[in-house]
Amino acid sequence: MKKTISLSISPICLAIALGIMTGPAQAKPVTWEDIKNDAATPEDVLGYGIGPKAQRWSDLNAINTKTVGKLTPAWSFSFGDEKQRGQETQALVHDGILYITGSYSRLFAVDARTGQRLWSYSHRLPEDIRPCCDVVNRGAAIFGDMVYFGTLDAAIVALDKKTGKVVWKKKFADHTEGYTMTGAPTIIKDQKTGKVMLIHGSSGDEFGVVGKLFARDPKTGEEIWMRPFVEGHFGRLNGEKSTPTGDPKAPSWPDDPNSPTGKVEAWSHGGGAPWQSASFDVETNTIIVGAGNPAPWNGWARTSPGGNPADYDSLYTSGQVAVDPSTGEVKWFYQHTPNDAWDFSGNNELVLFEYQDQGKTIKATAHADRNGFFYVVNRENGQFIRGFPFVDNITWATGIDPKTGRPIEVEGQRPPLPEPGQKHGKSIEVSPPFLGGKNWNPMAYSRDTGLFYLGANHWKEDYWTEEVTYTRGAAYLGQGFRIKKMYDDHVGVLRAVDPGSGKIVWSHKEKLPLWSGVLATKGGVIFTGTGDGYFKAFDARSGKELWKFQTGSGIVSSPITWEMDGEQYVGIASGYGGAVPLWGGDMADLTKPVPQGGSFWVFKLPKH
Amino acid sequence: MKKTISLSISPICLAIALGIMTGPAQAKPVTWEDIKNDAATPEDVLGYGIGPKAQRWSDLNAINTKTVGKLTPAWSFSFGDEKQRGQETQALVHDGILYITGSYSRLFAVDARTGQRLWSYSHRLPEDIRPCCDVVNRGAAIFGDMVYFGTLDAAIVALDKKTGKVVWKKKFADHTEGYTMTGAPTIIKDQKTGKVMLIHGSSGDEFGVVGKLFARDPKTGEEIWMRPFVEGHFGRLNGEKSTPTGDPKAPSWPDDPNSPTGKVEAWSHGGGAPWQSASFDVETNTIIVGAGNPAPWNGWARTSPGGNPADYDSLYTSGQVAVDPSTGEVKWFYQHTPNDAWDFSGNNELVLFEYQDQGKTIKATAHADRNGFFYVVNRENGQFIRGFPFVDNITWATGIDPKTGRPIEVEGQRPPLPEPGQKHGKSIEVSPPFLGGKNWNPMAYSRDTGLFYLGANHWKEDYWTEEVTYTRGAAYLGQGFRIKKMYDDHVGVLRAVDPGSGKIVWSHKEKLPLWSGVLATKGGVIFTGTGDGYFKAFDARSGKELWKFQTGSGIVSSPITWEMDGEQYVGIASGYGGAVPLWGGDMADLTKPVPQGGSFWVFKLPKH
Repeated sequence: MKKTISLSISPICLAIALGIMTGPAQAKPVTWEDIKNDAATPEDVLGYGIGPKAQRWSDLNAINTKTVGKLTPAWSFSFGDEKQRGQETQALVHDGILYITGSYSRLFAVDARTGQRLWSYSHRLPEDIRPCCDVVNRGAAIFGDMVYFGTLDAAIVALDKKTGKVVWKKKFADHTEGYTMTGAPTIIKDQKTGKVMLIHGSSGDEFGVVGKLFARDPKTGEEIWMRPFVEGHFGRLNGEKSTPTGDPKAPSWPDDPNSPTGKVEAWSHGGGAPWQSASFDVETNTIIVGAGNPAPWNGWARTSPGGNPADYDSLYTSGQVAVDPSTGEVKWFYQHTPNDAWDFSGNNELVLFEYQDQGKTIKATAHADRNGFFYVVNRENGQFIRGFPFVDNITWATGIDPKTGRPIEVEGQRPPLPEPGQKHGKSIEVSPPFLGGKNWNPMAYSRDTGLFYLGANHWKEDYWTEEVTYTRGAAYLGQGFRIKKMYDDHVGVLRAVDPGSGKIVWSHKEKLPLWSGVLATKGGVIFTGTGDGYFKAFDARSGKELWKFQTGSGIVSSPITWEMDGEQYVGIASGYGGAVPLWGGDMADLTKPVPQGGSFWVFKLPKH
Repeated sequence: MKKTISLSISPICLAIALGIMTGPAQAKPVTWEDIKNDAATPEDVLGYGIGPKAQRWSDLNAINTKTVGKLTPAWSFSFGDEKQRGQETQALVHDGILYITGSYSRLFAVDARTGQRLWSYSHRLPEDIRPCCDVVNRGAAIFGDMVYFGTLDAAIVALDKKTGKVVWKKKFADHTEGYTMTGAPTIIKDQKTGKVMLIHGSSGDEFGVVGKLFARDPKTGEEIWMRPFVEGHFGRLNGEKSTPTGDPKAPSWPDDPNSPTGKVEAWSHGGGAPWQSASFDVETNTIIVGAGNPAPWNGWARTSPGGNPADYDSLYTSGQVAVDPSTGEVKWFYQHTPNDAWDFSGNNELVLFEYQDQGKTIKATAHADRNGFFYVVNRENGQFIRGFPFVDNITWATGIDPKTGRPIEVEGQRPPLPEPGQKHGKSIEVSPPFLGGKNWNPMAYSRDTGLFYLGANHWKEDYWTEEVTYTRGAAYLGQGFRIKKMYDDHVGVLRAVDPGSGKIVWSHKEKLPLWSGVLATKGGVIFTGTGDGYFKAFDARSGKELWKFQTGSGIVSSPITWEMDGEQYVGIASGYGGAVPLWGGDMADLTKPVPQGGSFWVFKLPKH
């Protein structure tokens, strides 16, 4: 009998052979369109904040107020390496793979279906890094075939997303001066030139760095422009010195005729570092980012001798900055805390949202500042619209002047200079303390309720001035502090805030400080984590706690949700650390029972 | 209107006031009766092995073959501390509190309902500890108001179980010589004297220690007796030199007239360390424990020059030892591997069980040895009953002689001495390799099926002799090795073994080596963990995998189950490490993708 061998290729084989079908092994490149539409494509999470507006909103609703009670872990992933501490990351998801940054400048690619580690990258850190607030990282960016993240030695690394191999690595500053990078970079597309750019800043204000925002070519890492956030410092464009930020004479910083620069010492080390992630307004082609606190914290070092702090705003610190992606020029600036004497900073996330006012659509930013006030600012021109408190018992200001947009300061709330012969100034009690009414942990905006959901804290501090002189690589504060409890029954308070009325719609108290990002979903569910290790779900309308799960270590990261194989998943990192246990005074005791950790958790509804 | 104030005390208040009711804050002391009945009291787990017979059996059946598919995490607990590596623990449960040992000699008390850490103890370890096989710990013992565990610096620590404060601490040997402690201690009660005793051994055979078993007063830690496991060495009783172990002339070790001891060097450093936990036969008042490998590994160092290894059994190593609790005397000894030249050791757990034979109840031990054979031994007299292979392709012996109980060795399977002028002997291929057909990871016995369930491994090694001279604190092996794969598709193999027929009833393959203990339950479910991080449930009768959950790191620990508030819980530690990634040759590559971890997981059925 003669055998007939028939050579047949199935359509699936053919598709694979032609590279049409993709799986984790052959993941698609990420395009700008993918990133722009992130909030509308629930199968992936491609940027910090979930979309350029950073609303942390998802259209998914399989997990909803009715079903969330059944939410159950699908898998967990250990970061490993005998490295734990704070895990402040927000993961990305693309083509069935999670990209998760970990403490100590690590990045893991993990199969989103199984939790299996596909590759990991552990950045070789020098011994002399100077992270102010733990060895955290808040997330990666993704574009093309690469994932990007910042490292604690002031570098940014691009990795091949399939293999984890380094494609390029750029050191952007000297880490021994205090520069680090903890925030997630942002991918934007300059709507004028069509250039896709990687935008990132740095941390380091506690060491007297000059805060700078960078734009890079994501393919090569080459710098396109750099913009410093201390008035009078010069930017860079295409490798050349460009324009000064603001007035080259920097009138918002005192002169000092005895100084080689002609300005006070602080001006040369003035802070303003944009260490959180930038948001991007595609329509107006504007990068919007928070600028850090001025350095040093001691406001008298940024005020002329015997002068009035109100005359020296320490621009462009402790405010929100709009930057032109084509040139790196400042388009507008709105300052939350002029001559910030409290380390309030302006770094907290800028959420872009729209609302109707007398038939007009207002394009705004929303920002809950460490200073305790929630700001709505017109993002087309930087005009202040409204500001209101989102925490109790703010002592440093009674409100924001609706005409000028400047805080109405309370006298005696700037820590006074030491009396002659004294090394420390008189201690005053201030609220919020420098850790903020809310810190970096990003809020979410619900497109359904129109409310913002944020993890705030009720605490206060004793605050006093100290002598301060800049020493390279040393802390540059000029202020001492002790964080204290405000209430006996809670520190953390999860709140739903109406950006129109300024009303606190609901509050949910937590014993420990809240340091976790928030996620809002079409299912009417708000997700966030707690310092004592619970991942929790709340009813967006009532604030009722609907579900919780104990993850074993404290949660100080930001949740995400995505759809895979027809099911909705929710993911969050667990691992306690960050600024609170390091700087938190009374809080350090409160959080002492919380073990460190380092793991990622994925949840879904059971099928049965 | 006159108000009447009625002062009433509810029965519950009264009970609390009178100290009748107990909760986690006022937990009851653990009695010997509690420990003896451990296997019959599903609300607690009070000893390693779950009861003195170490059967790892539970009468609980709410989680069964029908319901286990719905098993879901209840909570997780992170061990914290930036310490990870292998987590080989078996937890204890008492009065709603879990006592969990962790890597680096740590112990955690955790609320079994919430996963909240109640206290933790982290032993201060010196830099010069010498753990051969990772910084593991396998569990604690509990008695009275104390919990006990061994530390890597060769000490045993008693902690107040309410507070975690040290009650006593005994250093039992010099850790710089290589003594460590990784196994869980055992609480027994001498049925003759009525004395409750804490029994423990040590590790260190790879450094040429003399293996010793200790009995202590659990209240004070004072030694009652000590029994060495090298023939001719003397024991101690009540602080005095007692009897020699076996023949004082130690004929099972060669003489050396040029040596000050009159014996070969190896005799002074002869190993036999009982590093696993002892079982206890209440009826015959007998401690039964495995003795470690002789030191050095190289059998020629324990054979007279030109002599026959068969003439030098290296007693009392690589076998099972029965010890009289009243005196510390050896009652009987059965050796699995005479003159062990393969580091097979005899440490694997001894499970006490009974079976019917021609109308008679046989009281036996069951033991699955690293040498690949499963042994059934009469535990009343140490007589060999039967032995059969539980892994494939054993090369070193064809079987166990039913008359003598000695292995029928295959010629050429003892690594030969180096040829004259050579430093290394000719390499031979041996299976099982020194990591064993099964290692320490304890098997379970089902009282329903009458089968043993064990995590075995299919692998082999290249093995060769090397020169060896004892140097204090240095490895004392005299053999080199490389572990290799036996099969392409698996290393680990979970097996159900019939102790009567020697039949392998079912096998389940795992890609990575198995290094996790096994638990059998009345629900017909077998639980164990895998190297790639899954906690799994199998049908005890068919071996069908019924359920799995990814815990994020590899599992090398032993599961437990208990009942609380009317629900059945299952708990296991996750955290990869142990001997395999350190010593495992090809296995090290296989296990490289597994991240380290350190967490405890608790599972239950959902209520909805």
